[in-house]
Amino acid sequence: MEIINLDHISANPLLPEVQEAMIKTIRENFGNPSSQHKIGDRAAEALATARESVARLIHADKSKEVVFTSSGSESVNHAIKGLVLANEDRGKHIVTSNIEHKSVIRSLRRLKMMGFQLASIPVDGQGRVDPAQIAKAIRDDTVLVTIMHSNNEIGTIQPIEEISKITKEKKILFHTDAVDSVGVVPIDVQKLGVDALSFASNPFYGPAGVGGLYVRSGLKIWPLIDGGIQENNKRGGSENLIGIVGMGVAADLAMRDMDTRLAHYNKLRQMMLQELPNYTDEYIINGHPEYCLPNLVSVSLKYIEGESVMLMLDDDDIAVSTRSACASGSLRASHVLLSTGLEFADAQGTLVLTFGIDNTEKDIIRFLTKLKETVKTLRDLSPLYKKSA
Amino acid sequence: MEIINLDHISANPLLPEVQEAMIKTIRENFGNPSSQHKIGDRAAEALATARESVARLIHADKSKEVVFTSSGSESVNHAIKGLVLANEDRGKHIVTSNIEHKSVIRSLRRLKMMGFQLASIPVDGQGRVDPAQIAKAIRDDTVLVTIMHSNNEIGTIQPIEEISKITKEKKILFHTDAVDSVGVVPIDVQKLGVDALSFASNPFYGPAGVGGLYVRSGLKIWPLIDGGIQENNKRGGSENLIGIVGMGVAADLAMRDMDTRLAHYNKLRQMMLQELPNYTDEYIINGHPEYCLPNLVSVSLKYIEGESVMLMLDDDDIAVSTRSACASGSLRASHVLLSTGLEFADAQGTLVLTFGIDNTEKDIIRFLTKLKETVKTLRDLSPLYKKSA
Repeated sequence: MEIINLDHISANPLLPEVQEAMIKTIRENFGNPSSQHKIGDRAAEALATARESVARLIHADKSKEVVFTSSGSESVNHAIKGLVLANEDRGKHIVTSNIEHKSVIRSLRRLKMMGFQLASIPVDGQGRVDPAQIAKAIRDDTVLVTIMHSNNEIGTIQPIEEISKITKEKKILFHTDAVDSVGVVPIDVQKLGVDALSFASNPFYGPAGVGGLYVRSGLKIWPLIDGGIQENNKRGGSENLIGIVGMGVAADLAMRDMDTRLAHYNKLRQMMLQELPNYTDEYIINGHPEYCLPNLVSVSLKYIEGESVMLMLDDDDIAVSTRSACASGSLRASHVLLSTGLEFADAQGTLVLTFGIDNTEKDIIRFLTKLKETVKTLRDLSPLYKKSA
Repeated sequence: MEIINLDHISANPLLPEVQEAMIKTIRENFGNPSSQHKIGDRAAEALATARESVARLIHADKSKEVVFTSSGSESVNHAIKGLVLANEDRGKHIVTSNIEHKSVIRSLRRLKMMGFQLASIPVDGQGRVDPAQIAKAIRDDTVLVTIMHSNNEIGTIQPIEEISKITKEKKILFHTDAVDSVGVVPIDVQKLGVDALSFASNPFYGPAGVGGLYVRSGLKIWPLIDGGIQENNKRGGSENLIGIVGMGVAADLAMRDMDTRLAHYNKLRQMMLQELPNYTDEYIINGHPEYCLPNLVSVSLKYIEGESVMLMLDDDDIAVSTRSACASGSLRASHVLLSTGLEFADAQGTLVLTFGIDNTEKDIIRFLTKLKETVKTLRDLSPLYKKSA
């Protein structure tokens, strides 16, 4: 039986068109885009085309505002460390939220070791930050606000436009980690009003290990990778042209198919939420019902451990996640779920279900059927469940 | 007529076996190596296999000493900034040479902006550093010595083993940028005695935009990309698995074919050096006659500009370089050539010729024939040449 993938946030399959474009690039053996001879010219053209596609996807004003990176995490590190270190004269204080991705948290922790100060804003029970609290946290020496666009564990989308009104007024740099949003929901960097925006290729069916960073023209930012003149002097190192070409094609397709995909995701998400009570009980749906990613459902099943559910479903060829793949291997409860006020025990019972364009309604039913059995088995073994019953 | 590529250092073609392995990875649509379900397992296996291949190529003691990166430049940035910032308690002084790659120079310049001090050692006329001068430059507060293994413009190979004897004795960290050496000449990190070694996949016919960093077990090093637990906690971000698989296969082939390739490179290099006087005159061969890369010839043609030669040869479908592709676009004379004592005017007339396994003796002759015409045309136009004649 084929594996049902309900863990698309860990790895999306490559679209056939993306595969073909990457394979063509492999076979044609392009050169180095920085070379000044014919072999390099074709590579430089392919790079420019991909950059234009990606710039269109996020509505960047100029394609040179897009820096290709090796992942969303690199983009986040580059944006946060690069902006803060290049603009240290403005101050050493940074404002963030309590539910950011590890790449943000650890970049900030690194800056703290280097003498920067942090203010971390709480979220409400549905995972939203209150822009007024950000305004309150901003000090005279605040150099950067970094708030994610959508959360990778609960799917909550933040009021980025409202926050950027505050940062613009106070003339403070604003970065958003939009790794799980770009190519999934419409993103317009102009409308959002951000100075920098991090994203990656895989969430819209491009290759893993390829990312992008939008940096508004004219900003001072240090490269994360110092070296050659590549990427408009913002990132040294020979380009991963094969991956970048794949990202470009994936961006074109994300633009073309965004509405169809959104409709598909929303249908599966609605079905999952409507059918869940028919298969199990005593669970909590995490995140915001309206401001949320269309392709993600986070559900906390009481009295059991998500890890056990995941492993048992894996035996039945159903792939789900308990949280960000970047954090797997760690058994601590999710800082995101605890920040929304979820009890520690309930947080342990969480599954993150993420849909892809390849999922069908039948997948949802097969998952729910297996989930019912699994939950029953585990709850029958659970001392917590017996006590509560 | 097919393009003759004598600029392999800018971009090597992918080997057929590397292409096939990458295409297979694209078609099989592996998952995320960090996921804990079946889809992720296959990816984790592919990643482990590639890591073992690469570890074998550089004779690392353990495969986990290899960190996959997105380029040689990323590896260099990671090594230099990561070691220095994590070991700041040992001191804030760094020793390097005058002929390092831009990624080293600019990483060091960045650290200087952050309060570190640099000592940069000169080289002799053939581009070699004197280990005794490094010993002399080391202070009580020296934290790192970083000296490249081979130079990307003149091919000179440095006495790394002798330098590591000094750094070991003085208990100072030692990094070498071996981007143009690994997979080209035999490299054994144990014998070299280095703490960290940067390399990339393309010099041995793997994909561009994929690199590696050797970090000896037990060293304190900060990630350059903070985030998830990938790469043994040394580099956050989803892996470029397609590229990494290509690098692994390329590493296996580099091990298997190293002797054949070396013989081929040496044959072409010898032929080039022997035939040059039959086609042109008044030139200088840069670099060291013995301690040198087998696949590189740097020649400075008097009274003319290398850029003009390159462009004219490009019209004749022959690709050569005037210097590192990372620095192209900049018309300043090479800091490497000036450091070896070359006159500014002579440095301007430099061609960097780099051979690949696809080059033939016929390529050399066609290049030399065209070079003869080109040099004659340009010298006839050159006021410098007329004055000297």
